[in-house]
Amino acid sequence: RVNKQRLWEDIHHSCQWGKGERWGKGETDTGMSRLSLSDSDRMARNWFEETTRSLGCTTCIDAMGNTFATRKGRQQGPPTCAGSHLDTQPTGGRYDGILGVCAGIEMLRVLQDEKIESEYPIGVINWTNEEGARFPISMVASGVWAGRIALERAHAIREVGGGKQTMRQELERIGYLGDMEASYKAMPIGAHFELHIEQGPRLEAKNQKIGIVQGVQAYRWHTITVKGRDCHTGTTDFANRSDAMLTAAKMILHSHRLAAKCASLASTGILTLTPGSTNTVPGTVCFSLDIRAGEDGRLMRLEEDLRADFGKIARNEAVDDLNDARTIGKGCTVEWSLDAPSEAIKFDKDCIACVTDSAKEIFGTEFENRTQEMTSGAGHDSVFTSYRVPTAMIFVPCKDGVSHNPVEYCSPEDCAYGAQVLLGAVLRYDKL
Amino acid sequence: RVNKQRLWEDIHHSCQWGKGERWGKGETDTGMSRLSLSDSDRMARNWFEETTRSLGCTTCIDAMGNTFATRKGRQQGPPTCAGSHLDTQPTGGRYDGILGVCAGIEMLRVLQDEKIESEYPIGVINWTNEEGARFPISMVASGVWAGRIALERAHAIREVGGGKQTMRQELERIGYLGDMEASYKAMPIGAHFELHIEQGPRLEAKNQKIGIVQGVQAYRWHTITVKGRDCHTGTTDFANRSDAMLTAAKMILHSHRLAAKCASLASTGILTLTPGSTNTVPGTVCFSLDIRAGEDGRLMRLEEDLRADFGKIARNEAVDDLNDARTIGKGCTVEWSLDAPSEAIKFDKDCIACVTDSAKEIFGTEFENRTQEMTSGAGHDSVFTSYRVPTAMIFVPCKDGVSHNPVEYCSPEDCAYGAQVLLGAVLRYDKL
Ligand SMILES: NC(=O)NCCC(=O)O
Ligand SMILES: NC(=O)NCCC(=O)O
Repeated sequence: RVNKQRLWEDIHHSCQWGKGERWGKGETDTGMSRLSLSDSDRMARNWFEETTRSLGCTTCIDAMGNTFATRKGRQQGPPTCAGSHLDTQPTGGRYDGILGVCAGIEMLRVLQDEKIESEYPIGVINWTNEEGARFPISMVASGVWAGRIALERAHAIREVGGGKQTMRQELERIGYLGDMEASYKAMPIGAHFELHIEQGPRLEAKNQKIGIVQGVQAYRWHTITVKGRDCHTGTTDFANRSDAMLTAAKMILHSHRLAAKCASLASTGILTLTPGSTNTVPGTVCFSLDIRAGEDGRLMRLEEDLRADFGKIARNEAVDDLNDARTIGKGCTVEWSLDAPSEAIKFDKDCIACVTDSAKEIFGTEFENRTQEMTSGAGHDSVFTSYRVPTAMIFVPCKDGVSHNPVEYCSPEDCAYGAQVLLGAVLRYDKL
Repeated sequence: RVNKQRLWEDIHHSCQWGKGERWGKGETDTGMSRLSLSDSDRMARNWFEETTRSLGCTTCIDAMGNTFATRKGRQQGPPTCAGSHLDTQPTGGRYDGILGVCAGIEMLRVLQDEKIESEYPIGVINWTNEEGARFPISMVASGVWAGRIALERAHAIREVGGGKQTMRQELERIGYLGDMEASYKAMPIGAHFELHIEQGPRLEAKNQKIGIVQGVQAYRWHTITVKGRDCHTGTTDFANRSDAMLTAAKMILHSHRLAAKCASLASTGILTLTPGSTNTVPGTVCFSLDIRAGEDGRLMRLEEDLRADFGKIARNEAVDDLNDARTIGKGCTVEWSLDAPSEAIKFDKDCIACVTDSAKEIFGTEFENRTQEMTSGAGHDSVFTSYRVPTAMIFVPCKDGVSHNPVEYCSPEDCAYGAQVLLGAVLRYDKL
């Protein structure tokens, strides 16, 4: 019942704001660069509001810029929602988040066209700054809604890379600092379903169409600050240096090695150094450390090991299983600051059942071949909604498993399969 | 004959423009942050022009903004010059370069006060962008003057860190794009003497006052670009990554190890990555590599080894003597681009003799105890002048050997010793 062509057009219509790097010749062969609360994000938000209103919804915006479009049901009550996000990575693609919002809009279009009356209201949500790319707490706005992150803290987050703007300033600037409190109490919802590209290779590898997501792995984002001493690169021998860059390089390499040993992940995506001159050994280096693991306990053990070992590396002492971390030179200091913790999550059984049944209806006897139960490697707004309301997610394959990259791609067919499962799941939940 | 107090006042008067980080309570206890061709550099330049004119000099500015102040002598001919620079590192000190220019001004003050007529003209030079901190070719303007760097290339250099301005644009903006050709032919000089802080610990370690500089070590600045692939930090396992940051970290560590093995230096002072998001593995990392060695041959061997090994590290192959450079993951590519080569230099015998004799006059029987022959670890404009005219340098100690750091310090006494040796050396050369 979902209209594949119409969904595809919505996706790429909404991608006119914030186009990124071109990778092919086709009209839609560009990535996206729509950082949260940028001017292009404002345009996409305006489109979201106008479109959902034109489909019979009322919209409201909370103090984090989260936008809730609600369509009346037979009875009053909290809406069953489809939600995701319209912000992207600086070099992101056209499907991460965008597919989920556009599939929600397609759901509204189907309900409108077919004059379906739901039991309770049905909603579509655009969450703010899911990526955490510009303001470095991912899913921060659903986190505030869920009461897991303080509004003041969220409003005060500054842009990455030494930028000066805070989230609050940027919400105000683009006109999305809403009047409504950002809270599951002020804006209660009944359930949250999120369609998303898998962002990994597992569905594609098995030629499957739908991932029935059981939960999300744990992750923690830190900013690590290494302090040494600025000095001249030509006149300071190694023995007299406290080289913050060399020390950070050793930590980045070590985090990779240690994570690999315990089936976890460690990545550094941001690094800034000061003063930033070819002939001055940098006295300060800050870098992001994103660590992930399937279970909270394993993640915390990795973090504890890294804390101990980074301390040793900073002091230029031997690290037990990486003796050669020592180099000629004096020590540095190291400090950790936790930006965003995200615990491992298990989704709601009833919601998962709605997704499963919806997929069964579509694939029939092919269900086993075409679907897979899986855990999400990435965080999503559904992590935070799951603390307050029944939640589940639906994954669709993306080409080569590539995401956070301009070439990210999901075929029109797969987008439509996902939207169809989403629609079926929402309507099923509405009936419960 | 040099006036210690007056010299000290000139130094700190000139440091009112571009003050940096405060490190103590005293009026002069701040570093400097006077990047080349910034507004504060313009103010310092204006002061240099006005002051030297008020001391009876004519001034002229060449197409690189180099400013030559010349005081008439009994006969016409190329001036014997004292030269250095007024630009600083982003977190630099009050002596690097500034002392040399101010000692030149103090020389003019002494000549004026004591109505000394020199045989030939005597000059003081402020060279542009010696540091290479903002426009990443050190000593670029003396390099153009010496005919060793093309004017067009120099004019086209862009600011570091992704800045947009070129040298030419900034010269024009601050009004220092002079009419005169930047060339030793258009603006010939007779000899070049440069007083500078040592920027290292060797004079202080022996409680000596003057370094008689014999030459300068070789160095080469490169920009290394590592390219991998942007991908999601949470959904991409290590095996499927081409992690440009991890690869760069391994190269930085390896450059340190290899340089240490051959008594050379390697340093990374700038590193930028894209896209720069906590949850995207960076696809591109660019970093500066500053390598130095006492002899050209040794430096080139180090560079060749690094080129071969960086290639292996990029391909994630074992490096012979650092087998553990391998990590789980796919390869990246690496490219080198040479920004600034500076060959090892030996200074002129006659000029060195003038410095030696001048120091002997001051220290008498204490000469052996108070002076040291030494090689400079840092490049200076004297490197480039030495290709065209007899050149030598004089070093004075700086506290703890620290330079390119706000706490850089040279005592009033040591500044005055240096200025006195400079004055004596210039007048001796004038007599030759
Ligand atoms: N899906 C997605 O990219 N979410 C951002 C949070 C994360 O890095 O996992
Ligand atoms: N003296 C000084 O810092 N010169 C800049 C060129 C170099 O890095 O050696």
